[in-house]
Amino acid sequence: MVFQKEITVKQKPRGFHLITNEILLQLTELKNISAGIANIFIKHTSASLTINENADPSVREDMEIYFNRAVPESDARFYEHTLEGTDDMTSHIKASILGASVTIPITNGKFNLGTWQGIYLCEHRNYGGSRKIVVTVTGV
Amino acid sequence: MVFQKEITVKQKPRGFHLITNEILLQLTELKNISAGIANIFIKHTSASLTINENADPSVREDMEIYFNRAVPESDARFYEHTLEGTDDMTSHIKASILGASVTIPITNGKFNLGTWQGIYLCEHRNYGGSRKIVVTVTGV
Amino acid sequence: MVFQKEITVKQKPRGFHLITNEILLQLTELKNISAGIANIFIKHTSASLTINENADPSVREDMEIYFNRAVPESDARFYEHTLEGTDDMTSHIKASILGASVTIPITNGKFNLGTWQGIYLCEHRNYGGSRKIVVTVTGV
Repeated sequence: MVFQKEITVKQKPRGFHLITNEILLQLTELKNISAGIANIFIKHTSASLTINENADPSVREDMEIYFNRAVPESDARFYEHTLEGTDDMTSHIKASILGASVTIPITNGKFNLGTWQGIYLCEHRNYGGSRKIVVTVTGV
Repeated sequence: MVFQKEITVKQKPRGFHLITNEILLQLTELKNISAGIANIFIKHTSASLTINENADPSVREDMEIYFNRAVPESDARFYEHTLEGTDDMTSHIKASILGASVTIPITNGKFNLGTWQGIYLCEHRNYGGSRKIVVTVTGV
Repeated sequence: MVFQKEITVKQKPRGFHLITNEILLQLTELKNISAGIANIFIKHTSASLTINENADPSVREDMEIYFNRAVPESDARFYEHTLEGTDDMTSHIKASILGASVTIPITNGKFNLGTWQGIYLCEHRNYGGSRKIVVTVTGV
């Protein structure tokens, strides 16, 4: 059994955002899967998806602090692809470090995440707009 | 055909560890799959999984050296989420850079890895405990 | 429905290369899948795969600039695994940051990528040779 759905995630400010529930609300079909995987894929190159801590909001803030230091906008002078600003090429770099998709096990109709895990949308642009995500579920 | 199994990987010291065989020993069902994929997913946010070199133990040591320099604990002063120590937030960061899962092709009942590839458990905490991994196999 | 194919990607110079079409030309079976996922897996530990911008070649050049600065070869003195040169351990590190595989949704016989997305082969070695990739498609 395979099902697929393109969902739109509302515009978020630059930073890391927990979107597990925003995805689940649009994925009621999940309850019909007893075992399988969900591939969650973002159709953009300046935002990304990752799995991280779902409880303390300061983790999301600290992630933003880290990635701004690891991929600093002050380095934009080394890059050519900066037409849209100093957050242009740095966003592409962050997107490849974090990745365009996460793949999550499904067990008994639910994402089989650890107690402390959630899905993050990582918005790397200052003004990123809404983001399109394709969820593909394969299972039985 | 889908099968799924939650396995426990024994506590490891902080660092990078080759766990291909520890997984395979708990995955005898693999021999029934002629073609497919295995998603190997760690249910934690301060340890991660990656694919890398399976022969020279110094690669695993050098990986630890690199990641400790790229995500230094001395930067913990910039973070808020440090209640559990200087290896708290840095572990979450490393986990997102490396990723919570790897997806590997299966061919003729075996992981179809390159000659030099193995599965690493990346333990980012000083005392991480045992780790839970969900393996989901989809194939024919 | 599952199909699997091992393809060889021609030797590329060190750097980031758009290989979407090189893969698609060897994957004509894709047209038979209405919904599913493709796992594209590289069988090497010093080259990697990622999804990024498909239009402006300077993105690929800027990626190479970034990763050479983030994982500098001048740091090879900190590593033990340097028998094959200063690009040896650094290539393994870059490979784990970027990842050995990408998983992409398939819709109506095509990769369901965003308008600006393409598949990159990231060649981290100075002389990497041709690279083997296993594509596994699961779908209906």
